[in-house]
Amino acid sequence: MAEKKLEKWQVKDSIRVFDHRWAKVRRDSCILPDGSEIDDYYYWEGGDFAQVFALTAESQVILVRQYKHGVKEIVLELPAGMIEAADASPLVTARRELLEETGFEARTWQSLGVLHVSSAKATTRAYPFLAQIAQWIRSPSLDDDEDIQVIFCSVPEVLDLIAKGIIRDANSIATCFKALQVLERI
Amino acid sequence: MAEKKLEKWQVKDSIRVFDHRWAKVRRDSCILPDGSEIDDYYYWEGGDFAQVFALTAESQVILVRQYKHGVKEIVLELPAGMIEAADASPLVTARRELLEETGFEARTWQSLGVLHVSSAKATTRAYPFLAQIAQWIRSPSLDDDEDIQVIFCSVPEVLDLIAKGIIRDANSIATCFKALQVLERI
Repeated sequence: MAEKKLEKWQVKDSIRVFDHRWAKVRRDSCILPDGSEIDDYYYWEGGDFAQVFALTAESQVILVRQYKHGVKEIVLELPAGMIEAADASPLVTARRELLEETGFEARTWQSLGVLHVSSAKATTRAYPFLAQIAQWIRSPSLDDDEDIQVIFCSVPEVLDLIAKGIIRDANSIATCFKALQVLERI
Repeated sequence: MAEKKLEKWQVKDSIRVFDHRWAKVRRDSCILPDGSEIDDYYYWEGGDFAQVFALTAESQVILVRQYKHGVKEIVLELPAGMIEAADASPLVTARRELLEETGFEARTWQSLGVLHVSSAKATTRAYPFLAQIAQWIRSPSLDDDEDIQVIFCSVPEVLDLIAKGIIRDANSIATCFKALQVLERI
């Protein structure tokens, strides 16, 4: 397939118009490939996170059920956490979040690449991982604002939860997709 | 599996702190189930969109290649578009975007439910659809800031593009997952 020549926009000016520890909004003035200009392109900055499809030694997938205030629902998702420190790698974050949210450590870890969370509206990337031979080490250690139930499901049960719309987080579903490809279940 | 009793947060106060046509940020003061308070919970409001996994009569999947300024990359995704008017339904939006971005109309349409785009950081929902027997009607009619290449792939080719990280939009991958479940390919 011949690829059409597509060009990136040039950034003429860029200002962070909103700056809070957990919320950063940037406004760019851009020059488009045809020479036209957009002077008010707003997007969300940062918020990169790691996400884990973890399988126990008994081939159970580890899920977390919790309240999320963006969508204002109690949701069922894969364990995930923000890459907070500038020097924290996605893998270090993934290991930490799996342990903190669920109390599990896994023997083998494999990167599943990178995902875009909202390619037009945010810079945010998610870093999905496949973790295998996960074993319970200790009780979860949750942040003050976290109240989490850990749930274990077989792979067919996870597929059913996605089909029924009970797991509805696009990033969790995309991470499941890529993990199941590596596991040769898709 | 017994479900642990999880509670939603109560919203004590809520202010839109940033308000532009394409960018709305809200700050909530919340009371958590344990009685503690968070007085600065920021999240992105709105931006709901429809997304289409469209198959032509020859079983080719219709993809779009274009520049996205959130991630600043040329990306390969499923056709998608914002639900702009208050009275536009996800299905009306999905049909319009498929036609505008690719020039195709489909004979059959099926809702694949709803997806969360970023459950902690945004209210945003995506509405995925499976469209079948898509046929070329006319040339695409693009917005001023859009420059799009339409690409056709078989289902095995799409799986390969996801495995290789070339399709990396979580919402597109989640929509593919749900469409392939309905098509009994997963």
